Amino acid sequence: MAVYTEVTDDELAPLIADYGLGELLSYKGIAEGVENTNFLVHASEGTFILTLYERRVDPADLPFFLGLLEHLAKRGISCPLPVRNRAGEVLTTIAGRTAALVTYLEGVWPRRPRTVHCGAVGRALAELHLAGADFPMTRPNSLGLEGWHEVFDRFATRADEIAHGLGNLIAYELAYLDRAWPRSLPSGVIHADLFPDNVFFVGERLSGLIDFYFACNDAWAYDLAICLNAWCFEADFSFNATKARALLTAYQALRPLTAAEREAFPILARGAALRFLVTRAYDWLHTDRNALVKPHDPNAYVRRLRFHQEVTSPGEYGLEHAP
Amino acid sequence: MAVYTEVTDDELAPLIADYGLGELLSYKGIAEGVENTNFLVHASEGTFILTLYERRVDPADLPFFLGLLEHLAKRGISCPLPVRNRAGEVLTTIAGRTAALVTYLEGVWPRRPRTVHCGAVGRALAELHLAGADFPMTRPNSLGLEGWHEVFDRFATRADEIAHGLGNLIAYELAYLDRAWPRSLPSGVIHADLFPDNVFFVGERLSGLIDFYFACNDAWAYDLAICLNAWCFEADFSFNATKARALLTAYQALRPLTAAEREAFPILARGAALRFLVTRAYDWLHTDRNALVKPHDPNAYVRRLRFHQEVTSPGEYGLEHAP
Repeated sequence: MAVYTEVTDDELAPLIADYGLGELLSYKGIAEGVENTNFLVHASEGTFILTLYERRVDPADLPFFLGLLEHLAKRGISCPLPVRNRAGEVLTTIAGRTAALVTYLEGVWPRRPRTVHCGAVGRALAELHLAGADFPMTRPNSLGLEGWHEVFDRFATRADEIAHGLGNLIAYELAYLDRAWPRSLPSGVIHADLFPDNVFFVGERLSGLIDFYFACNDAWAYDLAICLNAWCFEADFSFNATKARALLTAYQALRPLTAAEREAFPILARGAALRFLVTRAYDWLHTDRNALVKPHDPNAYVRRLRFHQEVTSPGEYGLEHAP
Repeated sequence: MAVYTEVTDDELAPLIADYGLGELLSYKGIAEGVENTNFLVHASEGTFILTLYERRVDPADLPFFLGLLEHLAKRGISCPLPVRNRAGEVLTTIAGRTAALVTYLEGVWPRRPRTVHCGAVGRALAELHLAGADFPMTRPNSLGLEGWHEVFDRFATRADEIAHGLGNLIAYELAYLDRAWPRSLPSGVIHADLFPDNVFFVGERLSGLIDFYFACNDAWAYDLAICLNAWCFEADFSFNATKARALLTAYQALRPLTAAEREAFPILARGAALRFLVTRAYDWLHTDRNALVKPHDPNAYVRRLRFHQEVTSPGEYGLEHAP
């Protein structure tokens, strides 16, 4: 939630012209984007988002992310479309940063998702998986099981500063997942971070998906498990089975899960909870308390993980049978 | 540069409907506004700024500020126009804050103003003064000579923490202005803060004026002296006489200064420099160094004040004769 880098009008106006977008009408730094600096740009040819890539995003990954957006948009997914400049490039440099200009998507993200939103996101996730199936580039998931170990190793000795017993909980879970994690489920491009703030709605109509900077290749059903964690728990950490059913049913209407995916779903849900638990715990311990961006409370994912640990069959998520 | 208060979609969508602006399409917190929280709102009926009033702005002053914008817009000044809701009100409440919705002005503020910008702002300031002449409400200038004393009294003992001798400089200047300050110049509504970040351009065409939250009744020529300080000094603190001539000539083309105003101009320029010196010095000493909004360096106005102290006649600003 910050503008890390300022951009001057003298830099931006020629850039807009170079993209063939006419005259620069206005631009505002927007208080979104934990990782990057974003400006909402009005030009005479339309509305755009200018993203300046700051920390965490590896420049080597940008062709994958931007190529994926072009690929998905071409297949009808409503996502930001990178604009090419006169040289045919999607990447440029401004204010000393690598940057890209993408189309602006109207829509607001639901602060309090309802069941109708969960159904829409389930359908959109299936569309995304199918549309990405023939995307030729690949990117390994750096925040997969190996990655969770690596992140945990960097704060394991301090984990109990967050909550008593947290270090043991994570170590136990990692040992379990090392044994149980499924290795050969149907895979492809996944979003890997499809939280409510990355899904836009106009009224109750889903209008677009944003923030593909964690996208990678991994098991599709793991992406669905991330969404289940992100969309189907209430503020008091209770699991909302109605929302889960809406999410899973809408997803399966387009891409039914295989028997192996259904069987593995409780394990995937545990892994998805652990993935956000370890990165939030790390950020919690490593963010200056005066920082612009407040870290998320890891406890929300401790509670989700404990819920999934008690699940004994896919039926508890509403996945007993093929739809 | 911050969003101090979050607004949810469930709060904003009905508000937009209540203003008769159709459907909420999107909204983004923008990283502008030191005092308030601002959202750029796209609705099906247009683009707007939603301002939530935070600290510093006295709610009792809001009818003056918003009434002034309506008055000026009606007279052809390009400024934000407050939108009235179905009840006919310009003020509403959202997220626990008093708030207003105003029309969005296209334009970018010039990070490095050139002479052409200074001429445009001179003309716009004269238009503003003339358009505001028959505005029926009044608001005293709380940051006039008395106000500078009050602000200085709150940090006088610590002034030299900023720069050796600063306390003496300000005390000397206040004593001088107490004797010399003109009391009966032509007066009316002034903007009082028309810095470059409050003046929008599309290309070289001035497209609008914003941020009227310091507007008040005071000497028109004092407002012009504020602009001279804000627009006609370079980054190295040198006075740019070409820019000053462009500003003053364009202003006087619409409203020629009286002999008394020309005579008083060097004193007004000193007062205008001191006004920003004392508030910046106060903020410098009272802003947490980790604050979201970085304070402006008071030294820029020490340098301006010292320049004006050396001026011996209005001719040095290019004001020797009636135009």
